[in-house]
Amino acid sequence: MNNKIYFTPGPSELYPTIGKHIQQALDDKIGAISHRSKQFQEIYAHTENQLRTFLKLPDNYTILFLASATEIWERILQNTVAHTSFHLVNGSFSKKFYECAGELGRTGLKVEAQFGEGFYPEQIAVPAETEAICLTHNETSSGVSMPVADINQFRAKHAEALIYVDSVSSLPYPNFDYSKIDSTYFSVQKCFGMPAGLGVWLLNDRVIAKAEAMDKKGISLGTYHTIPSLVSKAKENQTPETCNVLYIYLLGKIVEDMNKIGAQEIRMSIDRKAKLVYDYLQTSKVFSPAVADEKLRSQTTIVANVTIGSAEVNNQLAAFNMAVGTGYGNHKDQQIRIANFPAHSEQAMQQLVAKLQACFG
Amino acid sequence: MNNKIYFTPGPSELYPTIGKHIQQALDDKIGAISHRSKQFQEIYAHTENQLRTFLKLPDNYTILFLASATEIWERILQNTVAHTSFHLVNGSFSKKFYECAGELGRTGLKVEAQFGEGFYPEQIAVPAETEAICLTHNETSSGVSMPVADINQFRAKHAEALIYVDSVSSLPYPNFDYSKIDSTYFSVQKCFGMPAGLGVWLLNDRVIAKAEAMDKKGISLGTYHTIPSLVSKAKENQTPETCNVLYIYLLGKIVEDMNKIGAQEIRMSIDRKAKLVYDYLQTSKVFSPAVADEKLRSQTTIVANVTIGSAEVNNQLAAFNMAVGTGYGNHKDQQIRIANFPAHSEQAMQQLVAKLQACFG
Repeated sequence: MNNKIYFTPGPSELYPTIGKHIQQALDDKIGAISHRSKQFQEIYAHTENQLRTFLKLPDNYTILFLASATEIWERILQNTVAHTSFHLVNGSFSKKFYECAGELGRTGLKVEAQFGEGFYPEQIAVPAETEAICLTHNETSSGVSMPVADINQFRAKHAEALIYVDSVSSLPYPNFDYSKIDSTYFSVQKCFGMPAGLGVWLLNDRVIAKAEAMDKKGISLGTYHTIPSLVSKAKENQTPETCNVLYIYLLGKIVEDMNKIGAQEIRMSIDRKAKLVYDYLQTSKVFSPAVADEKLRSQTTIVANVTIGSAEVNNQLAAFNMAVGTGYGNHKDQQIRIANFPAHSEQAMQQLVAKLQACFG
Repeated sequence: MNNKIYFTPGPSELYPTIGKHIQQALDDKIGAISHRSKQFQEIYAHTENQLRTFLKLPDNYTILFLASATEIWERILQNTVAHTSFHLVNGSFSKKFYECAGELGRTGLKVEAQFGEGFYPEQIAVPAETEAICLTHNETSSGVSMPVADINQFRAKHAEALIYVDSVSSLPYPNFDYSKIDSTYFSVQKCFGMPAGLGVWLLNDRVIAKAEAMDKKGISLGTYHTIPSLVSKAKENQTPETCNVLYIYLLGKIVEDMNKIGAQEIRMSIDRKAKLVYDYLQTSKVFSPAVADEKLRSQTTIVANVTIGSAEVNNQLAAFNMAVGTGYGNHKDQQIRIANFPAHSEQAMQQLVAKLQACFG
């Protein structure tokens, strides 16, 4: 039996009710039912409806289920950018998304900030040829967030461009104004407390229209996971391929649980836990917040510089059955990352901070 | 509690040990561990080693984990066919694979057989420009199989072409001579008794070399799931994206269980169960084998014509907590499909045949 609490930035702690839901799924043989059955269509509709309610998603948005957010990076550019996308790059994940453009034979343009820094919309010059502006709400590698108010500033100045927001490790925390963006997407192993293996893609009619227009021009959008193919099946509460029926079921059950708490309360709880951690980091002898501008500090993946090496932090936490994430890539040893997801209870976060304080001051 | 036995052709009955393995995974928090951790690398290596042993896979083969076999159709053409693939089409799934070529801007050529019919290698003229010959060991829609001995005939005549074999719903039943083919792939929800959400791709060095050559020529192979990207991560027992850690773990556990029985015994058990069903179909008043040529009849997805409608069959079987698959597509009402996978015990198959006989004669 593993009793460790994982504060790693995803995969991370599983949502507390997941064991119960998996047991129910086994009892009901959800893993054995056909993805073309009425029973599956009802599961799909339930998950979709719970997500719509939870995120207050407008009617002009479609929800699609893919294998990962990494897949969504590929599909969104392949399907809706004929020539040029423009990326705000300030960490490893926004950089990977930017690189997808070139790998697909498109032109990816970028403005880049130093690791640990963010962007100020008024300073961003979006090139005229941009078909899609690619923003990152939460850069999981560096712990830099772009406030929703800043995201909302792009639409007025760039009415023609599609606006995409990576919220892989933050949704449902950001309370998006969905009229100011065109698409966002997340991974279930972050804030939804599930095992990895499902990416959820929210996209509006403009995105679908762009894909259809590219299709008409004869541009290849891929095969089974083109937007037209996905949307056509989504209308029947199905997917083009045999999908991960069990995970779509589990996501619906977890979001149903979250709806009982409410998105607003979940956001406030994340805020309370984040304050606890950041308050500690600012007084600690060995830790300090890695993001200088307080307004850009992530609430869901808190990154700290550490003077004693990240391995030593986890060595000491192991005695208390806890683990935090190391820094990402080159920052592996000098930083830690603390996931602050809905699955991390306030009590668990209090315990983590207490142990960090006791061990390291 | 759902006590139905699913003889549907995938998703289908789960492997009997899966509940135990899922419980162990929950206890060990496999869903929470990082896909970049040493613990995951060990899980990956375990699954890979179990599969290598089980399938007697030669060293020049690499195993890759993707989201579905449908994804593998796309990736294999996108990565290794610059111009022309050649497809033997005799059902809905081989046709979908063929259509992928055109959707990717390649030229798909085909030879087509009637639904329910198969191919005889000596009658197939492979066009000279063919880069990849795409065969289907088991056409899940029609229940037509291509014997391994027939598959093995292509290599000698077409030494340059890559030979791909769809074994989505049959592996591990076919005892392939891996020196006579270059790649094959399967879905875990068929013969491996798992929930859907993982496609397993076996490919040799020639396939990898072809992808690398196309990459050097500047042909776009995609982004995260290109063969070079997948292979490079596979060497570290990892995947490019955050993968379905739990399902890779479960597959390893199930194949470990299967290794204790042995591939040969599993194949013989499938043969015994198939004989039971086909013997019944040939004497039945309402059913008859849908595939005329006995040598081409699938052992793992048995398709029968039915005079009374497939819905009526399932209506009557429901009283005994059993379900078979309906026919595929246009054949939905006039055919049934009976999955004969390792998860279907000989006792369960005897019961199914007994009930069919009792209900329909």
